[in-house]
Amino acid sequence: MATLFKDVYIVDGSREKAERVHMLVSKGRIAEIIDAKETPPTADKIISGHGKAAVIPGFVNAHTHAAMALLRGLGEEAPLMEWLQNKIWPVEDKLTPEYIYWGTLSAMLEMLATGTTCFADMYFEMDRVAEAALSAGMRAALCRGITAGEPGKIERSLQNNLELAEKYHGREGLITVQLGPHAPYTVPFGNMKMIADEAKSHGLGVHFHFLETEGELKNLGVDPVKYLADSGLLDVPYLTLAHAVFLDPDADISPDNITLIHNPCSNLKLGSGVMPLTKWLERDFPVALGTDGASSNNRLDMWEEMRTAALLHKGVNRDPVCVSALDVLRMATYEGAKAYGFSHKGMIREGWFADLVLVNLDNPHYIGVNDENLAAYLVYAGSSADVEGTMINGRWVYKNGEFPTLDREEIVAKAREAREAITR
Amino acid sequence: MATLFKDVYIVDGSREKAERVHMLVSKGRIAEIIDAKETPPTADKIISGHGKAAVIPGFVNAHTHAAMALLRGLGEEAPLMEWLQNKIWPVEDKLTPEYIYWGTLSAMLEMLATGTTCFADMYFEMDRVAEAALSAGMRAALCRGITAGEPGKIERSLQNNLELAEKYHGREGLITVQLGPHAPYTVPFGNMKMIADEAKSHGLGVHFHFLETEGELKNLGVDPVKYLADSGLLDVPYLTLAHAVFLDPDADISPDNITLIHNPCSNLKLGSGVMPLTKWLERDFPVALGTDGASSNNRLDMWEEMRTAALLHKGVNRDPVCVSALDVLRMATYEGAKAYGFSHKGMIREGWFADLVLVNLDNPHYIGVNDENLAAYLVYAGSSADVEGTMINGRWVYKNGEFPTLDREEIVAKAREAREAITR
Repeated sequence: MATLFKDVYIVDGSREKAERVHMLVSKGRIAEIIDAKETPPTADKIISGHGKAAVIPGFVNAHTHAAMALLRGLGEEAPLMEWLQNKIWPVEDKLTPEYIYWGTLSAMLEMLATGTTCFADMYFEMDRVAEAALSAGMRAALCRGITAGEPGKIERSLQNNLELAEKYHGREGLITVQLGPHAPYTVPFGNMKMIADEAKSHGLGVHFHFLETEGELKNLGVDPVKYLADSGLLDVPYLTLAHAVFLDPDADISPDNITLIHNPCSNLKLGSGVMPLTKWLERDFPVALGTDGASSNNRLDMWEEMRTAALLHKGVNRDPVCVSALDVLRMATYEGAKAYGFSHKGMIREGWFADLVLVNLDNPHYIGVNDENLAAYLVYAGSSADVEGTMINGRWVYKNGEFPTLDREEIVAKAREAREAITR
Repeated sequence: MATLFKDVYIVDGSREKAERVHMLVSKGRIAEIIDAKETPPTADKIISGHGKAAVIPGFVNAHTHAAMALLRGLGEEAPLMEWLQNKIWPVEDKLTPEYIYWGTLSAMLEMLATGTTCFADMYFEMDRVAEAALSAGMRAALCRGITAGEPGKIERSLQNNLELAEKYHGREGLITVQLGPHAPYTVPFGNMKMIADEAKSHGLGVHFHFLETEGELKNLGVDPVKYLADSGLLDVPYLTLAHAVFLDPDADISPDNITLIHNPCSNLKLGSGVMPLTKWLERDFPVALGTDGASSNNRLDMWEEMRTAALLHKGVNRDPVCVSALDVLRMATYEGAKAYGFSHKGMIREGWFADLVLVNLDNPHYIGVNDENLAAYLVYAGSSADVEGTMINGRWVYKNGEFPTLDREEIVAKAREAREAITR
């Protein structure tokens, strides 16, 4: 079935100017893009934009813990370690595979309704997360969060992560799997080397929390680049470093197989600080955007991350020119897809996957929008309230408040039950 | 006509905990609040919340330039002075009274749809702004932005501002008028004294841009408190200082008749910096929230200001405990109302004005909300997309996408025409 977006603006992180086009989606891909002045191709379904709608790439939430939607609002306004140790971890101990399944699905409702088509998730019971993603038809980059604990725990978690890869990596083109050592402070160095070795021998990427707080940097006890090199992490096929708030932007690491994940709202909320984003962008180092878990954000809305990233660094650097709307749009789409091994995703190009967001521009706050300023309007004036539809592989997964692939009522009810059970 | 909010949560900036209540609105006021376990009073209209809706005070946008909605997106990503001098002022010269009327109304559509019931506006052709506010049934604190120019300009603008006060101050209980000297760098010191004298003799407040940028502080040439004292501004009936990014939080000024207006998004976007909010709050100094104009934000959405204020200061101070959700809720409602002479507005109390926002909590991102965490859910997880209705004086001015007091289609069309005319 083919869908025609008739007379819409398109923009992505690679385009200085938007274009007004007809765009045909067929067989899950962007099949054809022609100027809106041309005669539009035929299609089974037609979305008429009348020049008052935009189509942008679906967002890639490059670092989250989806099921933590169940833990939202627990222990507000507390320091990171106190929050983790006293509020989050004790409740997490009560999470069952079923709760994680429904919690993840409830997070997906939020993500799909706000235009996210792919999310990178580090958590546990990841088989259930994979099943949730497949049932929604949503793309996901999944890893098992590996942490130390009782003897043998790390080895079992790693084994579990490898089995996840075996079972789901590449499934339906929707899922990629990484290895997920949680952080330097939860995984002993010797185990990090073991995990990096497994990543190399299995050709898997590694998704890792790194230098989220200044305390973590101090406790590392070694130069961060030496840590990454000696552990073997610099040699894995690809590495995503979540947060990296205290990683020196002059660090001698390669942009070829490393992406940093900027989580501005979470870093602010937990009082961690502000990542030196401008310096990384000056280096052309790949940086993607993520929300982190809903318990430290507390939204799973990439529009908020884009806006916050675009505003925050201008303010703290006192430089209104840094971190452009186009930068954050690219960070919120293409960079995250690339970081997790999804090719042909994150830009609006013929032949690329039809993972798309339909945005309604027929609102007072878009008065004055045109091909030159569309990206800026979206980032600075837009919000998820403008999302009319979200499409993955050419299929609507959210449209005008409805979720064609999911049972919203059941998910909300089950997630409520889970929340009550874990906080009882 | 009486409206009953049946089984809703109420919260405001003065309540540590939300309450689940029935609330009766009658004759423009909150007439009765009783526990939701009691039998609800009768009413002509009933809004059934089923414990899945919240009612909060309408937001007070304490510093904006509403008609600048027409200038949104012009000169993105430029420094303040370059932006003002090259992008904004030349286009402003083309604004007619009619354009300002329609631009203001288009801004009101945004504000009402996002829960704002009152705005403080500094601009010109303010008669037209007053008429727009009266026709919408919206509260507004209005002043004529007074700037130097050709000989006699300041005197004429001041006269115009005084006539505005004469004509509109107190009108229908909806409007208050202040005097509006633009800023120290646009009004010579001698004229500031004249304006302060007029404010005192007419019993009017003063709304003033003060120390938005570090350059402005350097160019002031005198201690800021001495400037305020010597100009007479400290002695006017009430004074609102917009921005105050570079005002020393130890400054010897009185909280009795001064309110600072924090505009976090605008200050970030223009690269001005971050106001030392935590220090002012430690002093219990009144601080209200504002969006500034849509051309430097670029939204007129107080949810964004609340969220940004609550996250930003935690991050830059590396203190996850500072600036609570309750703080920003109070700043976004009560503090702004008080600052501009609106009494009995900004809290949910019997006898206070029924300027209210109805918020839908029946969404995945509110799973887990309860009486103890409602304010935090609203600020950190909520957004204007959750607004179901906005009421002023007990009358709906926004409800489920409709604007009962305004003609949305006409306003959008006229505002579009105005935008095209001024950017041609």
